[in-house]
Amino acid sequence: MQDFDVKELDRLLQQAFDAATALYQQRGFQRRVGFGKRPALVSVDLANAWTRPGNPFTCDQEKMDNEIIPAMQKLLAAFRANGLPVIHVTTAYEITDRKAPFTDMGLWHDKIPVDVVDLKDKDLCAIDSRIAPVEGEYTLLKKRASAFHGTELAGILRAANVDTILVTGVTACACVRQTICDGIADGFRTIAVKEAIGDRVPGAVAWNLFDIDAKFGDVVGVDDCVTYLNSLKA
Amino acid sequence: MQDFDVKELDRLLQQAFDAATALYQQRGFQRRVGFGKRPALVSVDLANAWTRPGNPFTCDQEKMDNEIIPAMQKLLAAFRANGLPVIHVTTAYEITDRKAPFTDMGLWHDKIPVDVVDLKDKDLCAIDSRIAPVEGEYTLLKKRASAFHGTELAGILRAANVDTILVTGVTACACVRQTICDGIADGFRTIAVKEAIGDRVPGAVAWNLFDIDAKFGDVVGVDDCVTYLNSLKA
Amino acid sequence: MQDFDVKELDRLLQQAFDAATALYQQRGFQRRVGFGKRPALVSVDLANAWTRPGNPFTCDQEKMDNEIIPAMQKLLAAFRANGLPVIHVTTAYEITDRKAPFTDMGLWHDKIPVDVVDLKDKDLCAIDSRIAPVEGEYTLLKKRASAFHGTELAGILRAANVDTILVTGVTACACVRQTICDGIADGFRTIAVKEAIGDRVPGAVAWNLFDIDAKFGDVVGVDDCVTYLNSLKA
Amino acid sequence: MQDFDVKELDRLLQQAFDAATALYQQRGFQRRVGFGKRPALVSVDLANAWTRPGNPFTCDQEKMDNEIIPAMQKLLAAFRANGLPVIHVTTAYEITDRKAPFTDMGLWHDKIPVDVVDLKDKDLCAIDSRIAPVEGEYTLLKKRASAFHGTELAGILRAANVDTILVTGVTACACVRQTICDGIADGFRTIAVKEAIGDRVPGAVAWNLFDIDAKFGDVVGVDDCVTYLNSLKA
Repeated sequence: MQDFDVKELDRLLQQAFDAATALYQQRGFQRRVGFGKRPALVSVDLANAWTRPGNPFTCDQEKMDNEIIPAMQKLLAAFRANGLPVIHVTTAYEITDRKAPFTDMGLWHDKIPVDVVDLKDKDLCAIDSRIAPVEGEYTLLKKRASAFHGTELAGILRAANVDTILVTGVTACACVRQTICDGIADGFRTIAVKEAIGDRVPGAVAWNLFDIDAKFGDVVGVDDCVTYLNSLKA
Repeated sequence: MQDFDVKELDRLLQQAFDAATALYQQRGFQRRVGFGKRPALVSVDLANAWTRPGNPFTCDQEKMDNEIIPAMQKLLAAFRANGLPVIHVTTAYEITDRKAPFTDMGLWHDKIPVDVVDLKDKDLCAIDSRIAPVEGEYTLLKKRASAFHGTELAGILRAANVDTILVTGVTACACVRQTICDGIADGFRTIAVKEAIGDRVPGAVAWNLFDIDAKFGDVVGVDDCVTYLNSLKA
Repeated sequence: MQDFDVKELDRLLQQAFDAATALYQQRGFQRRVGFGKRPALVSVDLANAWTRPGNPFTCDQEKMDNEIIPAMQKLLAAFRANGLPVIHVTTAYEITDRKAPFTDMGLWHDKIPVDVVDLKDKDLCAIDSRIAPVEGEYTLLKKRASAFHGTELAGILRAANVDTILVTGVTACACVRQTICDGIADGFRTIAVKEAIGDRVPGAVAWNLFDIDAKFGDVVGVDDCVTYLNSLKA
Repeated sequence: MQDFDVKELDRLLQQAFDAATALYQQRGFQRRVGFGKRPALVSVDLANAWTRPGNPFTCDQEKMDNEIIPAMQKLLAAFRANGLPVIHVTTAYEITDRKAPFTDMGLWHDKIPVDVVDLKDKDLCAIDSRIAPVEGEYTLLKKRASAFHGTELAGILRAANVDTILVTGVTACACVRQTICDGIADGFRTIAVKEAIGDRVPGAVAWNLFDIDAKFGDVVGVDDCVTYLNSLKA
């Protein structure tokens, strides 16, 4: 696919980000929302349809295997060691006939191939076994991009006194970004874990993380996140 | 600000979009949601704090004066001629003291300078006089990026049998994008009106419209929108 | 349980409703929202935990077997004959340990015994076999009282051009009432189907339907609903 | 209006509540959600259209003047002395022409006379001067029954680390009840302040507080609330 010069794109994007940063800094954007006192992990769509090859939703495999999954494993270890809430999010549908008079896909199948993630194919929708949920962790089934929109997530987090969410997963330009934007709108300090967020097309991770960091959540490296999590130990 | 080569950025971005489009087309993304039967106009943050010079939120003035406002005037004429719902959206806050123990800014002032749009400064929050609301049009006051999140908008539109929204305004990377993503999630056919959407930093309009068109709404030119609106005449 | 005079309660309640109706009529309440053009059936919690004996959630069995289920069967026949959307709603939880640091019960187990409807007990949460879903009907899993709150329902209905919901099920004082109140708030014409709504304590059906009819939705008999549904035939 | 025997109604209602309580207790309902660590006051529709005579929305005046307003004054004193968040809620509309093709009343004017609370009549929608907001308190404008539905409230409260809401105001059978039911669904410990909740028809306060206490929030006397608030002092 990438028969153009990705490195050259990255170089030009960085110049654009630098110019934007100059304006944003002068105007008072790009502030730090920071970590709060009680974080939860919200891991978006790291299910087989997205993490494994051969599906329309398959993401950049090199990044998935070499960066995202390892970063998730680090995060999960820290969340589990500290007894903090973990939410695994997946997406699937009951009625995937695009001609049905009525479907839980709503209108989204009119934009993207959500008709392939049928709830009846349990394997496609299951969280990747390399980061599988353990007892006490929650698997949230969503229907739209955001893990918050039309789901029980905000209420569950508030009930558990969570004030901060660390967001990971795919894709940067859709479900991850929407989850982050809704997260801060719903009153949670929102952190995008840099190494643990992917996509499937060139540039999308870069420009979406740039927009997010400017306005909706802090982009933070996984090691800094782990240090923070471990600092919460009693 | 733009002391780098904007045209070169555009050229590289276009190459990235072409590569992504090849993948998206092969995978079944970038479908057309299309126009429905009863549209509303949702015009986001075309209030003085965003449309006029001298404010942290001020957007690209050349584009505002020469493209966005004229496109909005065309759209308003068509919506009004056909008696269709028009919603003007603005953003402002009651409690703008950043040290207050509690504020309607929520946590957003921890990322961006929302503390400057104080509800008491009626002029800043007022819709730009060049596109001012007329009798029967609605002015929605929102607190977050999306015109839907935490507002009455979805309920009002459904009650009026609206099935399609044409979205305009600023900024592409925040309030416009969030409104579009929530719009389709809430069950509305969502159209981004190409000439009527702006931002304040280089590249942001291009990459956000690309992401939107791939997954959340159709990017359509203003003249095609006007043709559609006029086709609804009895 | 009912070792007091239920008939005397009903007689006094009717007098209270008559007095309230005099005031409401004079003030302009108790208006008719009426049927729209495209209805959906939203049937709330008619799953075994509520419809069958022996569970904390079990409802009035005589009413269930002799009125609610037969009324539902009439409604389902009419919805199916006319190809209209049917949503069956049920409630269950993944994490039902009341001492868990974090659970999808949120705080609700601090008021009612939701910890008994564990998702792992598929039979408890399954829709009653007498009114079981057929191909093309949707089963919605909710976590709170309302079928709308924190669910995909409003978006799905809007995407399908639904403008009216007929609401049935249990209980009148909780999940049915909340679904109706949210339904009209979300912009749907809301009809409470009189014979198809139950509860488990004396008086609760009467006073909740009275409040609903005064302010949130029309209470309509099942036969009038069926007549309406059949009138929609092409 | 009350030309029937209110005392006799109360006596019979109490018998019904006793019978229901026997069942609820046996089944595990009527649990106590309790107070949390950081409360906010959510005072619903204590604006002139509801608190003063002569409007369709006017409530029971004797109870308003002799119980609700004095209880609110006690609560406000305690919230203010302890620097805790106070939200005053009111309801009003921009477009009150019932024949308009589109209105922020949604469909609610098809049930109740919301067309009388026009935003242009500032006095009707203003909070009662006996309990007027002071600097730092928030006035929330809502469009539906619930103070949460389609508003910024949940996000604002979460951002301020609020975990508990004390709810007051009118009416028991509509806006107060909906606010309480949404409150616990959104993850807040929800307390109905007994003396500070009213209505306009006989019985409605009694049966709605009964339902609320059984399933959605604790009904607690104002003096116990004040004791709790004062216990939070550093």
